[in-house]
Amino acid sequence: MAITPKKVLVIHGPNLNMLGQREPEVYGFLTLEDINAHLQEKAAALRISLDTVQTNHEGVMVDTIQNARGRYDGIVINPAAFTHYSIAVRDALAAVALPTVEVHLSNIYCREDFRQHSVIAPVVKGQISGLGYYGYLLALDALRSLLTEGDS
Amino acid sequence: MAITPKKVLVIHGPNLNMLGQREPEVYGFLTLEDINAHLQEKAAALRISLDTVQTNHEGVMVDTIQNARGRYDGIVINPAAFTHYSIAVRDALAAVALPTVEVHLSNIYCREDFRQHSVIAPVVKGQISGLGYYGYLLALDALRSLLTEGDS
Amino acid sequence: MAITPKKVLVIHGPNLNMLGQREPEVYGFLTLEDINAHLQEKAAALRISLDTVQTNHEGVMVDTIQNARGRYDGIVINPAAFTHYSIAVRDALAAVALPTVEVHLSNIYCREDFRQHSVIAPVVKGQISGLGYYGYLLALDALRSLLTEGDS
Amino acid sequence: MAITPKKVLVIHGPNLNMLGQREPEVYGFLTLEDINAHLQEKAAALRISLDTVQTNHEGVMVDTIQNARGRYDGIVINPAAFTHYSIAVRDALAAVALPTVEVHLSNIYCREDFRQHSVIAPVVKGQISGLGYYGYLLALDALRSLLTEGDS
Amino acid sequence: MAITPKKVLVIHGPNLNMLGQREPEVYGFLTLEDINAHLQEKAAALRISLDTVQTNHEGVMVDTIQNARGRYDGIVINPAAFTHYSIAVRDALAAVALPTVEVHLSNIYCREDFRQHSVIAPVVKGQISGLGYYGYLLALDALRSLLTEGDS
Amino acid sequence: MAITPKKVLVIHGPNLNMLGQREPEVYGFLTLEDINAHLQEKAAALRISLDTVQTNHEGVMVDTIQNARGRYDGIVINPAAFTHYSIAVRDALAAVALPTVEVHLSNIYCREDFRQHSVIAPVVKGQISGLGYYGYLLALDALRSLLTEGDS
Amino acid sequence: MAITPKKVLVIHGPNLNMLGQREPEVYGFLTLEDINAHLQEKAAALRISLDTVQTNHEGVMVDTIQNARGRYDGIVINPAAFTHYSIAVRDALAAVALPTVEVHLSNIYCREDFRQHSVIAPVVKGQISGLGYYGYLLALDALRSLLTEGDS
Amino acid sequence: MAITPKKVLVIHGPNLNMLGQREPEVYGFLTLEDINAHLQEKAAALRISLDTVQTNHEGVMVDTIQNARGRYDGIVINPAAFTHYSIAVRDALAAVALPTVEVHLSNIYCREDFRQHSVIAPVVKGQISGLGYYGYLLALDALRSLLTEGDS
Amino acid sequence: MAITPKKVLVIHGPNLNMLGQREPEVYGFLTLEDINAHLQEKAAALRISLDTVQTNHEGVMVDTIQNARGRYDGIVINPAAFTHYSIAVRDALAAVALPTVEVHLSNIYCREDFRQHSVIAPVVKGQISGLGYYGYLLALDALRSLLTEGDS
Amino acid sequence: MAITPKKVLVIHGPNLNMLGQREPEVYGFLTLEDINAHLQEKAAALRISLDTVQTNHEGVMVDTIQNARGRYDGIVINPAAFTHYSIAVRDALAAVALPTVEVHLSNIYCREDFRQHSVIAPVVKGQISGLGYYGYLLALDALRSLLTEGDS
Amino acid sequence: MAITPKKVLVIHGPNLNMLGQREPEVYGFLTLEDINAHLQEKAAALRISLDTVQTNHEGVMVDTIQNARGRYDGIVINPAAFTHYSIAVRDALAAVALPTVEVHLSNIYCREDFRQHSVIAPVVKGQISGLGYYGYLLALDALRSLLTEGDS
Amino acid sequence: MAITPKKVLVIHGPNLNMLGQREPEVYGFLTLEDINAHLQEKAAALRISLDTVQTNHEGVMVDTIQNARGRYDGIVINPAAFTHYSIAVRDALAAVALPTVEVHLSNIYCREDFRQHSVIAPVVKGQISGLGYYGYLLALDALRSLLTEGDS
Repeated sequence: MAITPKKVLVIHGPNLNMLGQREPEVYGFLTLEDINAHLQEKAAALRISLDTVQTNHEGVMVDTIQNARGRYDGIVINPAAFTHYSIAVRDALAAVALPTVEVHLSNIYCREDFRQHSVIAPVVKGQISGLGYYGYLLALDALRSLLTEGDS
Repeated sequence: MAITPKKVLVIHGPNLNMLGQREPEVYGFLTLEDINAHLQEKAAALRISLDTVQTNHEGVMVDTIQNARGRYDGIVINPAAFTHYSIAVRDALAAVALPTVEVHLSNIYCREDFRQHSVIAPVVKGQISGLGYYGYLLALDALRSLLTEGDS
Repeated sequence: MAITPKKVLVIHGPNLNMLGQREPEVYGFLTLEDINAHLQEKAAALRISLDTVQTNHEGVMVDTIQNARGRYDGIVINPAAFTHYSIAVRDALAAVALPTVEVHLSNIYCREDFRQHSVIAPVVKGQISGLGYYGYLLALDALRSLLTEGDS
Repeated sequence: MAITPKKVLVIHGPNLNMLGQREPEVYGFLTLEDINAHLQEKAAALRISLDTVQTNHEGVMVDTIQNARGRYDGIVINPAAFTHYSIAVRDALAAVALPTVEVHLSNIYCREDFRQHSVIAPVVKGQISGLGYYGYLLALDALRSLLTEGDS
Repeated sequence: MAITPKKVLVIHGPNLNMLGQREPEVYGFLTLEDINAHLQEKAAALRISLDTVQTNHEGVMVDTIQNARGRYDGIVINPAAFTHYSIAVRDALAAVALPTVEVHLSNIYCREDFRQHSVIAPVVKGQISGLGYYGYLLALDALRSLLTEGDS
Repeated sequence: MAITPKKVLVIHGPNLNMLGQREPEVYGFLTLEDINAHLQEKAAALRISLDTVQTNHEGVMVDTIQNARGRYDGIVINPAAFTHYSIAVRDALAAVALPTVEVHLSNIYCREDFRQHSVIAPVVKGQISGLGYYGYLLALDALRSLLTEGDS
Repeated sequence: MAITPKKVLVIHGPNLNMLGQREPEVYGFLTLEDINAHLQEKAAALRISLDTVQTNHEGVMVDTIQNARGRYDGIVINPAAFTHYSIAVRDALAAVALPTVEVHLSNIYCREDFRQHSVIAPVVKGQISGLGYYGYLLALDALRSLLTEGDS
Repeated sequence: MAITPKKVLVIHGPNLNMLGQREPEVYGFLTLEDINAHLQEKAAALRISLDTVQTNHEGVMVDTIQNARGRYDGIVINPAAFTHYSIAVRDALAAVALPTVEVHLSNIYCREDFRQHSVIAPVVKGQISGLGYYGYLLALDALRSLLTEGDS
Repeated sequence: MAITPKKVLVIHGPNLNMLGQREPEVYGFLTLEDINAHLQEKAAALRISLDTVQTNHEGVMVDTIQNARGRYDGIVINPAAFTHYSIAVRDALAAVALPTVEVHLSNIYCREDFRQHSVIAPVVKGQISGLGYYGYLLALDALRSLLTEGDS
Repeated sequence: MAITPKKVLVIHGPNLNMLGQREPEVYGFLTLEDINAHLQEKAAALRISLDTVQTNHEGVMVDTIQNARGRYDGIVINPAAFTHYSIAVRDALAAVALPTVEVHLSNIYCREDFRQHSVIAPVVKGQISGLGYYGYLLALDALRSLLTEGDS
Repeated sequence: MAITPKKVLVIHGPNLNMLGQREPEVYGFLTLEDINAHLQEKAAALRISLDTVQTNHEGVMVDTIQNARGRYDGIVINPAAFTHYSIAVRDALAAVALPTVEVHLSNIYCREDFRQHSVIAPVVKGQISGLGYYGYLLALDALRSLLTEGDS
Repeated sequence: MAITPKKVLVIHGPNLNMLGQREPEVYGFLTLEDINAHLQEKAAALRISLDTVQTNHEGVMVDTIQNARGRYDGIVINPAAFTHYSIAVRDALAAVALPTVEVHLSNIYCREDFRQHSVIAPVVKGQISGLGYYGYLLALDALRSLLTEGDS
C-alpha cells in the first residue's frame, strides 16, 4: 500500500544556529545546515515534504507554531533553551494540537538541574534526547509512523 | 456630574489570538474579535476610549507597556503564558506605573501548579480570574472606578 | 428581554466587621455597613435580592453555606483569614455547588506569603482581588451574568 | 465468656451531614442517617451502646471529645476537613486519651495533596480509609476488640 | 440469601516472617503463623477460601500479584518495607486490578517520616493501619463486603 | 509615683481547661484555676484588674479579642493549638492593636515540628515559652511595664 | 559499504509481560510478544542479532546487564518501574558501559510526578519516551547508528 | 521562709556591646551598661549574685559556658547572631546542663526568615523575645523561680 | 608599553531605557544616555572602542550576543529582568565564549527573592552589583584588565 | 586474656562483583576476591571465623541477614546501591539486631546527591566510608572490639 | 577640585593568608602580600590611606569591624568562608554602617551550591565577584567614588 | 620492610574537653585524656609520632590546620559541632591538602537532622562514625595505611 505524502515542519530553537561552530564536545561537529540536509534526505525517503526554521525569538517560535496549523501534518521541535521556561511555546503547541515530537541533541538528564525539566514535554507525543542529530531523524521516522496510523 | 473621558489600553498575551478556534472547553467559544467588540461596547458605555493589542512577543509587550505611558490612563492586561515567568513584563508595568488590572479567562487556581503563580500580580492594582470574557468587562469597570476616584 | 430576579448571599469572613475602624491603609475607610449598602444598591439595579452575613466562626460559615442550598442562586464570599486554611469552608462550597465568586479587598498577591495561597479558589467560579469594596460589586455583576447564562 | 458492654462515641466532622445528597461519586449514596443506622445495628451486635454526633464547628468537636472522657470507652472519629489542619482536635484527642479509630470514607491517598496528610493520625490507635461507610463498621469492630483486650 | 464463596490471596511483605520473634513492642507477640491461623478462621466464617504467602523478594511479590489474576477475587496485602518505594509492586496491583486492601500492623503515621508515605495506597481500595493483626481480619471483612456488592 | 491602674485580659486557648488533669509531664500539675489564681494574685500586686477567659472555639476567641478593644489596656494570650494555624486570631490581634504578650507553657521549640512555628508571634509585642505557669506571671509583669511606659 | 553485524540485548522491566492485557489506553494493544516480533523484524533489517528478556526481579535485571558485557554490543532497556528508584540497575549499566538506549512506551512527562524522574537516564546514551512500541524500533535504529560510528 | 542566695551568669552575644549606639529603632536606647545595671538591681532584689559577660567570639562563649559549671546556679543568655547557627554554643549549654533562659531584645519572629530559627532554644528551659531589656529582668525572675523550686 | 586597542560591546537589557525617568530611589537619576556617555568617556581613557545597545527583546539580545563573536573582544552586560530566567541569553553567552562581565545597578541581594538568583552568572567572568552606574565603569575597567592579560 | 573466637558475616551488595574490572578510578584495582582474601587474613589475626557473600538481589540480601541470626556474632555490610533505598534491608538489619558496621569503598559524601543519604546508617553501630578496601578491615577490627566488650 | 583624603580598611577572611601557596587554579598565583601591595599602590593613586588585616577568627573580624567605626571612612571586605554563615559579621557591618564593598576572588556563582549564597550581601553597598585580585582594586575605586559623592 | 615513621596531628573540636564528665549515654565514659592515651599507644604501635590538640575556637582550629602543613603527614579530626557549619574549617583542610580522616564518636546518622550533614566530609579521605573512641584508633590505622601507600 502506497503511503500518503505528508508535510512536516522542523523548528530549531535559540542558539542552534551556532551548531558545529562552538562546544562540539557537547553538541557535535555538524552544522545546522548539515542536520537539515540529513533531515531532507530522510524526509524524501519517508515521502515527507519538509520545511525547517530556526529562530532565537520566542515570539517568532510561537507565531511559527500557530501558522503550522492547516499547513503541516506534524512538527519536530528542538526548543533548546525555551524547553525549560517558555510556557508560551507550550501553549502554542497545545493550541495547534498537531502531532509533535520533541528532540534534544544532548542527554539533558546528565546536565545541569534546570536542563532536566521540560515544560514542553507534557504537550507533545514523545521526546527523544541524547542521540545527537540522529534523534531528529528518529523523530521524523516516529512522526511518519504516527501520521500513517492516523490515515488508516 | 459628568465623568471625564479616559483612554485605556487592553493588552492580550500570547496565543490569545487562537481564542474560539481551539480548546473551547477551557477558554470558551468567543474569538478575540468577539471579546474586543464586547470591550468596545462596554468602553463606550463607560466613556472610555479603548485600544486593544495582541502579541505573542514578550519584547513587543514590554515596548507596548512602555509606550502606554503618557498616552493612556490605565491598562487591562491578560498576560497569558507570560503571567508565570516574564519579569520583563512585570518590570515594565512597575516602571510605567499606570493603574492596571490583570485578567485571566480561566480560573488559574484550578489548573496546573505552574499556572497558579503570577509574577505580574504584585505590581498591579487587582486581579480577576475565572470569569471568562466577562472578566475583561469587569476589569474595565474597575479601571473606570479607579480613574474616577483619581479625578476627584 | 426581562431578566429573571435572583437571590444571592454575600458572606463576609472573620474580622471584616472591624472594617473602617482599623488599618484603613490596608482595607480602606468604608465600614462593613457601607459596603453592604453599596451592595444592596447594586443588587437592586441587577434585580438581585440580596442577603448579607458576617461571621468570625468557621462553623457558622459552613452552616451558612450549607443552608444557602435551595435558598439562593449564588454566593459572593470574602473568606478573609479562612481563605488560607479552612478546608471545611472549601468542602461546604464544593458540596452546595452554587455559582460562587471569591472576593478580597486587598491584593493578596503583594502581602505575606501565607496570604498568597487560597484553599478556596479551586472550588469557586472566579476570584477578584485588590479592587477594594468595588470588587464586591463586580462579583455581584459577574454572578448576575453567570446566572443569566444559566437561564438561557 | 460474656463480653462486657461498652459505650462508644462516633463523631462525624464538617459537611458529613451533606452525605448522600451531593457528590455521590466521591462519598456514596448513603445519608448520614443511613450510616448511623448501620452503626447502631453493628453496635448492638457487639454489645456496644453507641452515641453519634455531627458538627461543622471545630470548637464543638473539641468540647465533645473532652466531654467523652469518663462517659465513653472509646471513640470512632471521621474528622473530615479538620483531619488536615485542626491541631485543636488533635490535642483534645491526645488529652482525653481514649482508644480512638480514625475513619475516612474515601481513599484520601488518591485525592488532592493536602488531603493526604492527617494531623490526627499520630494520636489515634489506627486509621481506616477508602472503604466507604463500611469503614465505620470496621472501626467499631476494631474498637470492640481493643476494649476487650483491655478487659482481660 | 446465601453469599457466594470467594477466593482471596493474602500477601505478607519482607521481614514479616520475623514477627513475634523480634521487636514485640512494635509488632506484637503473634507469629506470622498465628496471624495466618486467625485469618483462616475468619475466612471460613466469611465463606472465603484463603491462600497466604510471605516473601522478602520484590520480584516474587510482583509475580505473585500477576498470577493472582483469574485465580483470586481479591487481595489483602501488607507490603511492609516495599510500601514506601516499590513502584513495581504498585504497577502490578494496578495491572491486575483486583479489589485490594492494604494493611499495616503498626500506625505508620506515628513512625519515621519515610514510613508515612505509601506508594501503594493510591492503587488500592482502602488502607487499614495501626490495628495490629486485627487489621488483617478487618481487611478480609472489607473485601468480603466489596466482593458481595460486586455480586449483586 | 503611683502607677495607674490597668485592665488586662488573659485568654487561654483550646484544651487548656484540661490542665492538671492529663499529661502533667508536659504541662505540669496545676489546673487552669490554679493558674488563674496565681495570675489574680500577681495582678493585684501590679495594680492590674484582670479578667480571664478560656475557649475551645476559634470564633469565640476572635470575638473576645475584638471586644477587648476599648475595654482592656492589654492582652496576655496562650493561643494553644491555634498558635500554629489560626490566621483569624492573628488578624483579630492585629486589628485591635492592643499591647499583647504570647505565652506557652512548654518550650515549643523542643516539640513536634509543627509546634515550632507561631502564626501569632509576628503581631504581638513579645513571646514567652517554656517557663510553665510562671510564664503567665512574667507576661503580666511585662505588660505592666509596657503600659507604664505608655503612660509616661 | 557492508555494515558489520551486531548483537543487541533488549531488556523489558517489571509488569511489561502484562502488556496488551490490561490498561490498553495507557500502554496500547500490543502484547510483549508482538513487540518482540516487531523488534526481531527490525533487527534483521539492521543486521542485528537480537535477544530479548523480561523480568520482574531487580536482581535478575542486574545479573542480566552484567552478563551482557562481552556478549552484546549494545542494550535497549525499558526499566519500567525500576526507572524511578533502582540505583542497582543504574550502577550495573554504568559498570558494563555498553551503549544503551532507554525506552518508555508512554510519555512519562505527562504522568504522575514520581514517573517524571529517571535514575537511569544519566548513565545511558539517550532516552525515547511516549512513542509506544515504535520507540523500541527507534532505539534499535539509534543503537545501530551508534555502533556503526564506533566501527568507523 | 528565707530564699537561698544563688549565683547567675548573664552572657551577652556578639555586637550587643554596640547597644544604644546604633539602630535604636530596633534595639532601643539603652547601652549594655544600662542593661547590666538594671540586671544588678533586679538581682539584688532576688538575692542573686550576678556576673555579666559580653563577647563577640564564639569560642569564648563556649569556654565561658563550660566554666560556669560548678560556679553558677543558672544562666541567662542572649546569643545574638549565634542563636541561628552556633551548634558549638548549643552543645556547650547541653553539656553543662545548667538551668538556662534565652533572651532576645527584639521580637525575632517579625524579622528576617533566618532570625526566626534558634538552634539554641531546644536545649534551654525557656525563651523570652521581643520585650526589650525588660526581657532580661524577666529571665532573671524566671531563673530565680526555677532555682527556688529546685531547692524545695 | 602601549596597550592594544580593544573593542567592547555593552548590552543593556529590558526596561533600562526607562532609567532616570522612573523609580530613581531604586535606579538613580541618570538616564541611559548619561550612562552611555560616562562609558564612552571611560572607554576612551582605556583605549577601548565601545558600542552600546539596549533591547527589550530576548531574541534581539541573543542575536546581538551571537553577532558579537569576531567583532568584539569582550562584553559588558546588564541583563536586567532576563538575569533571572533567560536560559537563551545564557546559552548565547556560553556559545560565543567572549570575556564577559555582568553588571547590576542595584544590589540584587537585598531585593525580592527571585531577583537574588542569576542564571547568567555561571557563564560570565565576574559580576558587579549594587554600585549604580559606576559598576558599568568598573566592569569596563575589569574587562580591559582581562583583555590585557590575554595579550601578554 | 585469650579473646573468644567469633563468627562474622560480610555481605557485599549489588555490582560489587564487578570490582577491579571497571571504573578503577572510583573503586580501585582490587577484585572482590582480593578483598575477601584480605578480609580472611585479617579475620584470622583477630580470631574471627569469616563468611563472605555477594548478591545483586535485594531479597537474597534480606534472607541472608535474617539467616545470620543465631549463626553469626556480627555483620559487616556494604549495601552498595541498596544503601540509598532498600528499607527492606534496613528492616532486616533492625530485626536481627546483630552488631553491624556499614562500609563504603568510596567517600559517598563527595559523590552524587542521592549517594549521600543512607537509609541503612540509622540501624547500624557505625559507618566507615572513603577508605577503600581498607575500610572493610577496619570494620572487622571495630566489630572485634565491639564483640569483645560484649563478652566482658 | 581636590578630592578629600579618605581612610579605608581592607579585611581579608579565613584562609586568604594561604593565597598563592595552594589551589592557584582557583585563586590565582598572587600571595596576600602581593594583593596588599597592589591595593596600597591603587590607594595612593586614589588618595586613600589604607590598612589591611587578615584573620581566621570570626570574633576578631567582628571586633575589627566594630573598631573601624570612627576610624575609617569605608570598608572593603572579602569574608571568604564567613560569607556563607557568619551572621555575627553581618550584624557587625550593619551596626557600624560604614560604606562597604564585598569582594570575592572567584566567581562564587559557578562553585558549590553553598557558596552561592552570601549572608553578607544584603548589608553592603555592592558586591564584586569573579574578577580575581583586580576585584579588590575595583572595590577600592568604587568606595572612593561613593565617599566622594558623600562629600559633595 | 620497615615502615617509615610518620607524624600525625589529632584535632578535637568544641566541647570534646567535656567528654566523660557529661552525657555518657551519648559519648561514653572515657575522658579526652583517656582517648589521647589510647591514641598515643596505638600511634607507637604504628610508628606514628602523634600530637593532639583540643579547641573550642573555630579560628584556632583553622590556624592549627594551616600550621600542620609541612609539619605533619596527616590529620585525624573530630570537628564536633563545627562539622555542620564551619566552611572555614573545610576550606583550611582543602587548602593544606594533607590526608585527613574525619571521626565522630556517636553515629551522627541516628541523631538530629542537622547533625546528619557534614560540610567537612567532601574534603577528607574518609569518615568513621558511631564507633566511639575506637573510631579514632581506626582512623589512625587508616592514615598509617594511606601514608604507607604514598611512600611506595
